[in-house]
Amino acid sequence: MDVLKRRILSDGQVLPNDILKVDHFLNHQIDPALIMAMGEDFYNHFKDQNIHKILTIEASGIALAFAAATLFDVPLVFAKKTKSLLVSDDVYSATIVSYTKQTSSKLRVNRQLLKKQERILIIDDFLAMGEALGGLMNICQQADAEVVGAGIAIEKAFQPGGQKFRQQGYHIYSQAKIEKFDGDKVVFC
Amino acid sequence: MDVLKRRILSDGQVLPNDILKVDHFLNHQIDPALIMAMGEDFYNHFKDQNIHKILTIEASGIALAFAAATLFDVPLVFAKKTKSLLVSDDVYSATIVSYTKQTSSKLRVNRQLLKKQERILIIDDFLAMGEALGGLMNICQQADAEVVGAGIAIEKAFQPGGQKFRQQGYHIYSQAKIEKFDGDKVVFC
Repeated sequence: MDVLKRRILSDGQVLPNDILKVDHFLNHQIDPALIMAMGEDFYNHFKDQNIHKILTIEASGIALAFAAATLFDVPLVFAKKTKSLLVSDDVYSATIVSYTKQTSSKLRVNRQLLKKQERILIIDDFLAMGEALGGLMNICQQADAEVVGAGIAIEKAFQPGGQKFRQQGYHIYSQAKIEKFDGDKVVFC
Repeated sequence: MDVLKRRILSDGQVLPNDILKVDHFLNHQIDPALIMAMGEDFYNHFKDQNIHKILTIEASGIALAFAAATLFDVPLVFAKKTKSLLVSDDVYSATIVSYTKQTSSKLRVNRQLLKKQERILIIDDFLAMGEALGGLMNICQQADAEVVGAGIAIEKAFQPGGQKFRQQGYHIYSQAKIEKFDGDKVVFC
């Protein structure tokens, strides 16, 4: 998706340890016009797939998934990472590792919000090792819901997540696939 | 805002300790049509205020703030609650207490994302004790940005946050103001 790639080149920042900082337009400050265009791109890609629900993970996937949900006109569910009095114990859960936060966290989704045979589109901002996506897929499996595919904003194609899920037969669509970082330069596939 | 009040009456759930659970349409599963209508209501209320930026807090304020941001056509910034390699130390921060999560947390906003004299509209899903809103206002003060007002989905008017900020002269607009919970019934102001 060219508009996203251009924005990564102009406003993204490559940090040590293969970290791409996009906090000026995607995951701390959000450019609503860009995010709506990205949601529309996901819609155009998956619109014939009879999507029943969109699933993402707090916090940085929410705006993007919401933009898509407005076009699909289906509910959006975001998995929670923090335990709250408001999240009952009646949840599907999966434990994942965050490499950028250097922590593990437990994803939780209220069991009432995912139903058997629902057709789920997962949306998230990044795909690298595949931890978050794998956790969301695991939760869908627990609910006997069907993962139709995953829409990802930025895939680090030099890390194994995307390849792993595609080999498992999942339909993974990434709007910007990064082949490598060449110093502080981003090289797309 | 009648459509929100009706939805609270039909799908909200009153729990012990004055907790209102709205996770089927607002802060776990999200109804995109409702949230867009709420964003439009905030836009209509504040559209003459020359808003430069919208500020909210992860995670449950993001969809609502994003919906408004698309109409104001201004950037959205969400304060982060978790420390990450991606959040530099060059931040404005404020420590707040969450009564529903029974924890305190530190809000952080990258200093580059709030500028002196920017006119900020704060949007959040709940206003009760006023901890989150106070933390966001504190961060705006550190940045010398101007808080034009706050748009709140649900205010628990029997708790002191709203009154406190109105007495301080802030323009607080709440779409659904709850006078009290009568057993498991919600009574609006």
